[in-house]
Parts: sequence; C-alpha cells; structure tokens
Amino acid sequence: MNSINQVIPGEIEAIFKGGELIAAITQDHQSREILMLAWMNREALITTLQSSRVTYWSRSRNELWEKGLTSGNTQKLISLTYDCDGDAVLLQVEQTGAACHTGEISCFYRGIEATP
Amino acid sequence: MNSINQVIPGEIEAIFKGGELIAAITQDHQSREILMLAWMNREALITTLQSSRVTYWSRSRNELWEKGLTSGNTQKLISLTYDCDGDAVLLQVEQTGAACHTGEISCFYRGIEATP
Repeated sequence: MNSINQVIPGEIEAIFKGGELIAAITQDHQSREILMLAWMNREALITTLQSSRVTYWSRSRNELWEKGLTSGNTQKLISLTYDCDGDAVLLQVEQTGAACHTGEISCFYRGIEATP
Repeated sequence: MNSINQVIPGEIEAIFKGGELIAAITQDHQSREILMLAWMNREALITTLQSSRVTYWSRSRNELWEKGLTSGNTQKLISLTYDCDGDAVLLQVEQTGAACHTGEISCFYRGIEATP
C-alpha cells in the first residue's frame, strides 16, 4: 500500500481508465457484511481518501454525496482496494447506524433462492 | 427467500428496473472476501439461478460468460440478494481456484492507503 500523497494522480488515473464513474462496493470491515454499492467519480474518490469520510457521486442528483451528512449514518474509511481492470473499488468502512436508506443495515436485504 | 420458480419474472424485472445491466458483487461465502465485480443481464441472472453456475455478461466480448468454463475456476452459487434500488446483486459463492484472471484470489489485490 502506498500513501495517498504518493499515488495521486497516477493511481487515480489508473482506476478511472475505463470511464468517468467507477462502482464502489462498501463492506463493514469488522462483520465483513456488504453494505451497499454506489458510484464514485475522481473527486469523490479523492475526497474519500483525503477525509476518510466516504463520499460517493450521486447519479440521480448529479452531485457529490457525503454518506451520512444528513442522516448521521456516516462511513469512516478504513482501507481501499481497486480491482484488476480498474473499474471498481472496495471500501472497508466503519459504519455508523444503518447503511441503507430503508433502515436496514445493508442494502442487500432481499434474496432470491437458487434452485438446488 | 422465495423459490426461483415463484419469482421469475416478477422479481427479475424488479432487479432490472434501472437498466439492462446490473452490477454483480461476488463474495466467498466462507471467508467473506470480495472476489470480483462483474455485470449481469437478465439471461445471465436467470442462468445463474437455474444452474447455480455463476454466469456473467461480458461487456467486452458482448456475450454470456460462464465463470471458469475455460479456466476451471468456477463459482457455485450459494445465495443471491439484491439491493434496495435494484441495480446490483450480491452473490455468495463457493469459489474453485482463483477468482481473478491474474491468478490472485480476489481481483481487489491492489490498495491505496487513506490519509490518517
């Protein structure tokens, strides 16, 4: 792992080589539960790395979205990895309260059973 | 959880209400490590649920992609959940071999350290 000061902008550009938005998977660093999937642009990623307050890009509102700024359900960044083809990041976070706007801990609270 | 026979096509349509492709997060059901992020269309999702062999949609090759069909590094579906806004699924899988084409267990093997 490199310090953020050493890697901006080189690795940031590597992450975004596929486009303007990357998928951000958010995992509770202790329970390892997947909390949500959202999107980041360069500014959201850099803001998240520099502040440790997880900040996404809202595709519906077309603006930066600091998670929990209004709800209080903030996410503190513990670590960040990115995938082999540079179009997704995995955020390990410390979640305050529920991650989902429905009040569920995780946005992935509905399931479909596979056939045996 | 409902049986797949009861939920197709209703819940499948609910999952795809946001578009033609959904993000698929793949997690090792035992270690809880995130292995990869890929994409699914309706056919990939239904094939995965019916066969329990995880099948994605390859955006680069524009075709269905049964994971491990050539490499042997297959993924057996254990359970599937989908998120509150219906644009992502979370697959719990039993992974054979490495998930990443680089030979790494997970595609998320490179990190950037957050500033303290």
